[in-house]
Amino acid sequence: MDIYEESLKLHEKYRGKLEVTPKVPCESPRDLSLAYTPGVAQPCLEIQKNPENAYRYTGKGNTVAVITDGTAVLGLGNIGPAAGLPVMEGKALLMKKFAGLDAWPICLDTTDPDEIVDIVKKLAPSFGAVNLEDISAPRCVYIERKLIKECSIPVFHDDQHGTAIAVLAALINAMKVKKAKPEDMKVVISGAGAAGSSIIRMLYKSGFHKIYAFDIDGCIDPDDSEKYDPLKKELLEFVNLDHQHYASLAEGMKGADIFIGVSAPRLVSREMIASMNPEAIVFPMANPEPEITYDEAKAGGAFIVGTGRSDNPNQVNNLLVFPGLFRGALDYRATKITEEMQIAAARGLASLIDEKDLSPDHIIASPLDPRVVPTVAKAVGEEAVRQSVVRKA
Amino acid sequence: MDIYEESLKLHEKYRGKLEVTPKVPCESPRDLSLAYTPGVAQPCLEIQKNPENAYRYTGKGNTVAVITDGTAVLGLGNIGPAAGLPVMEGKALLMKKFAGLDAWPICLDTTDPDEIVDIVKKLAPSFGAVNLEDISAPRCVYIERKLIKECSIPVFHDDQHGTAIAVLAALINAMKVKKAKPEDMKVVISGAGAAGSSIIRMLYKSGFHKIYAFDIDGCIDPDDSEKYDPLKKELLEFVNLDHQHYASLAEGMKGADIFIGVSAPRLVSREMIASMNPEAIVFPMANPEPEITYDEAKAGGAFIVGTGRSDNPNQVNNLLVFPGLFRGALDYRATKITEEMQIAAARGLASLIDEKDLSPDHIIASPLDPRVVPTVAKAVGEEAVRQSVVRKA
Repeated sequence: MDIYEESLKLHEKYRGKLEVTPKVPCESPRDLSLAYTPGVAQPCLEIQKNPENAYRYTGKGNTVAVITDGTAVLGLGNIGPAAGLPVMEGKALLMKKFAGLDAWPICLDTTDPDEIVDIVKKLAPSFGAVNLEDISAPRCVYIERKLIKECSIPVFHDDQHGTAIAVLAALINAMKVKKAKPEDMKVVISGAGAAGSSIIRMLYKSGFHKIYAFDIDGCIDPDDSEKYDPLKKELLEFVNLDHQHYASLAEGMKGADIFIGVSAPRLVSREMIASMNPEAIVFPMANPEPEITYDEAKAGGAFIVGTGRSDNPNQVNNLLVFPGLFRGALDYRATKITEEMQIAAARGLASLIDEKDLSPDHIIASPLDPRVVPTVAKAVGEEAVRQSVVRKA
Repeated sequence: MDIYEESLKLHEKYRGKLEVTPKVPCESPRDLSLAYTPGVAQPCLEIQKNPENAYRYTGKGNTVAVITDGTAVLGLGNIGPAAGLPVMEGKALLMKKFAGLDAWPICLDTTDPDEIVDIVKKLAPSFGAVNLEDISAPRCVYIERKLIKECSIPVFHDDQHGTAIAVLAALINAMKVKKAKPEDMKVVISGAGAAGSSIIRMLYKSGFHKIYAFDIDGCIDPDDSEKYDPLKKELLEFVNLDHQHYASLAEGMKGADIFIGVSAPRLVSREMIASMNPEAIVFPMANPEPEITYDEAKAGGAFIVGTGRSDNPNQVNNLLVFPGLFRGALDYRATKITEEMQIAAARGLASLIDEKDLSPDHIIASPLDPRVVPTVAKAVGEEAVRQSVVRKA
């Protein structure tokens, strides 16, 4: 039985991966009169006086809505909101397992970006934060940006920034292993969708200024900009600043120092890796099957290889990020999750490996390392405080 | 320390009464690859093929959204969605405790009825049913009716029908104790809001045709109908069919056989009870303080008294209804909750007391009676099947 069949059986057996369980005593009539009527009137009134009291008397401050419209579920595409539910349940499960958060899946029966923004804003009173999930690009960028501006609680689109933060953390340490500087690196990114765009922005802001990005239409090229949608146009601030006209990904990778793949399986050959500069850093992260396998990339001469998979060294995965990020945002009562907080998360994550322990096959902590969540949470929270994007009681 | 203070302390201690806990194994990387990526793709694809498969592979079929806009929370009025959260958490807790349902609180930051309808419809993919809660009248009636027509999952406004179903169950048994027929009964209802309107409709459909209803403006009177809003006008089909012009509740209660209160504390005096017909049935159910206490009503000569309180005999309470009703709607895969299903719930509930065990102080089962939920669930589900309002797989 393969993993897909076995997963189907598991899902059929349990019918749902989450359960709602009481945290308070509720055995006796007395218990119920405290947890429910008439006693419950008192916390209601305290929250009416000051809505911030919701953090004091309810679960709001530990609760994350995991919200999708089902338009970009895993690599399956637009399969609709009902079909997205198993993934959202799984994500909520990880939130609990890794960070003790109470997350609940919400699958929205609309794909209209403004309507999604509007609904999420109106759901905010009963949640502490929002994890947007599996919403297609470029809509996801519009939706997240608008919500960050308008929503009263932190909103984070994991598909955009989760992997990007993990990539930046891995690169911070890879630079140390390689004894190189970001500004000297030629970076090639395959995939300029949700994740790719966020990686590009985050790397640029961290000193990587020679970035070339490829998508299904080839190399993003400032001289072609009239063809681009507004979001792709934005990337021209960060990529291909010297107006290269690469005809293919293979051509772009020649002489590159870093390859980052967030695109599709098997796009990269051993020869393409061999054409890169010495001590190449290769992060093929298409999931579940990467642009090139760890073994092939190594065989092509790559110095440091990271993938999204747990069965290779250097698992560069959003699981390193989102549990701690939400934990930190909620514990420090952040009102939003800024780019600076995301970069702080990457720095925190990178700091978990002592410089003396760094090696090509050990540039990033394991998602199972118990220090990951508290370290990321602290980094995110302290940056929120520094930026004064925290709630006043 | 009174119950309100103690409840506040409890709420501060636990910060939320609900927890989301994993139902599936999630210890090893293998576990996670079944519950999440890559395995989870399989149930997603099965649901994409047929959305009804969501009931087979996810928690949808055991999940209830408890939704409010915070406009009529307990007796506290329009305290807003944030302040309604403690009550919604409590309601979700009861759903679990009494019927094993996984319910999640949703407090909406809008009071616009059409917007609420629209949002609830768009939340439907990830829930099996919707419990509307603490939404003010007459908006709640409009919202529920529209959702029953347009939403793909069952929607039930407990404040309207929960108490009404319990009242009907109690009256079915009270008629047996009193050896009386519905059509001979003069019924006076104090309160013509959400609960009162539903009680009126349900009693009328069960043979009680001499009903008089009072609200803050006095007796509902067909000769005053030009003053009424559309929902109050609808009640004229069911109340005051002989055009009485009662000047007060006290006048209306003279010669009445049944008094039902869903209004406000202390509206009814011992003398008003004494003015009713012999063997009067008195259900003062304002919460937490009734229109007249059990003891006072008895002192006034009432034959059968039921209140919403657990510390008096005959607790006529919606807790007898909603857990079993949602359990039944979900187990039988109902597409809606019809008036007939509600009446079936009342009949099922009434049937729990054997005729030989009936007495003035024992006309309704206790909410703690373990037969209540399965009996109500079966009655509701079987009626759904009979009416063919069930999903096709």
